[in-house]
Amino acid sequence: MKLYGYFRSSAAYRVRIALNLKGIAVEHVPVHLLRDGGQQRLYPHLQRNPQALVPVLELDDRTRLTQSLAIIEYLDATFPYPRLIPEDPVLAAKVRAVALAIGCEIHPLSNLRVLNYLKGSLGQPKEAVESWISHWMLNGGLDAVEALLPGDEFCFGGNPTLADCFLIPQLFNARRFNVAYDGCTKIKRAEQSCEKLDAFMEALPSRQPDAE
Amino acid sequence: MKLYGYFRSSAAYRVRIALNLKGIAVEHVPVHLLRDGGQQRLYPHLQRNPQALVPVLELDDRTRLTQSLAIIEYLDATFPYPRLIPEDPVLAAKVRAVALAIGCEIHPLSNLRVLNYLKGSLGQPKEAVESWISHWMLNGGLDAVEALLPGDEFCFGGNPTLADCFLIPQLFNARRFNVAYDGCTKIKRAEQSCEKLDAFMEALPSRQPDAE
Repeated sequence: MKLYGYFRSSAAYRVRIALNLKGIAVEHVPVHLLRDGGQQRLYPHLQRNPQALVPVLELDDRTRLTQSLAIIEYLDATFPYPRLIPEDPVLAAKVRAVALAIGCEIHPLSNLRVLNYLKGSLGQPKEAVESWISHWMLNGGLDAVEALLPGDEFCFGGNPTLADCFLIPQLFNARRFNVAYDGCTKIKRAEQSCEKLDAFMEALPSRQPDAE
Repeated sequence: MKLYGYFRSSAAYRVRIALNLKGIAVEHVPVHLLRDGGQQRLYPHLQRNPQALVPVLELDDRTRLTQSLAIIEYLDATFPYPRLIPEDPVLAAKVRAVALAIGCEIHPLSNLRVLNYLKGSLGQPKEAVESWISHWMLNGGLDAVEALLPGDEFCFGGNPTLADCFLIPQLFNARRFNVAYDGCTKIKRAEQSCEKLDAFMEALPSRQPDAE
């Protein structure tokens, strides 16, 4: 399988963590989101994903899967050990809800194309863009995620789940944009547990071949 | 079970469609997103969901599930007929990807709290907010969804799936904000198929008890 990604894309970062946790080796193919006016918008990548986004997981039969959560659900169904989404439907719903709180309510508001629109089309100054980022990342964002967590070793229980695959890349973004989440003690605890695992550390943006 | 929702919330609308397709009766409890400065931000609802969002599905044992996609996944696991997410992992990934393209890339950028921030904190005039909405709804939004669809009777195949549960509320929003999607012929075909089903028509915002 091939994973089309970008070292700093938090959606690609989520899939890298899931692949590492399951011990699945794939070929990593970088798509540079800033070069050539955004390689994701050029022909070869648009063929892979009409959304012009990474990641794309290409299966050996050339089937292309898009959307990080859909890709991780696919991996969990086809490589079920270790499970990232619990079998119990209620616990699964809680794990998915944390992933979605990040994937639907935090991340979409501070990704590259939205920040470019704020700066370009809306002519917003740097300070307004920074306030925008920290507003959505913290208030009703990580604050709400903190309230949704039970306070276990990882997000849910003693092993990493889909929720941790989404949380860690979002925390990387928070640090990158200087958004402090020190008050989120349950999030901090899960983060420290994840940092002890190679699967998370080897997925770090700085450790990818296309890192700059 | 109780569904805490709001007639016009497209996330609640998605869950209503899924419940209707499965023939599950629940008690509908309205949370008015505009009254009292937003009832979703007041104590009783914040207790149900720290994200201050609808929908919330409350199970008979008072367990509360949040996030429309997590709720529909729960319903599909516990009331498996008719299935909304196909068993085949590749097809499931494609169905989920369309739902996520809407839930992560279109809807979060034009929901109430974001439009309020644009008008309030960023002082954007009506025209700029309208351009914002149509930009994210169409370009790389519904246009990309159109490209992801195979062109079947419904989004995927001859029966409604999770993808249709997400598509129809987004089209309701598109019409509400005067975003034309006439060129999206595969989307239009799926929409016409859904409109023939009571499950979709009875979930319409205008048919809810809290409709205004």
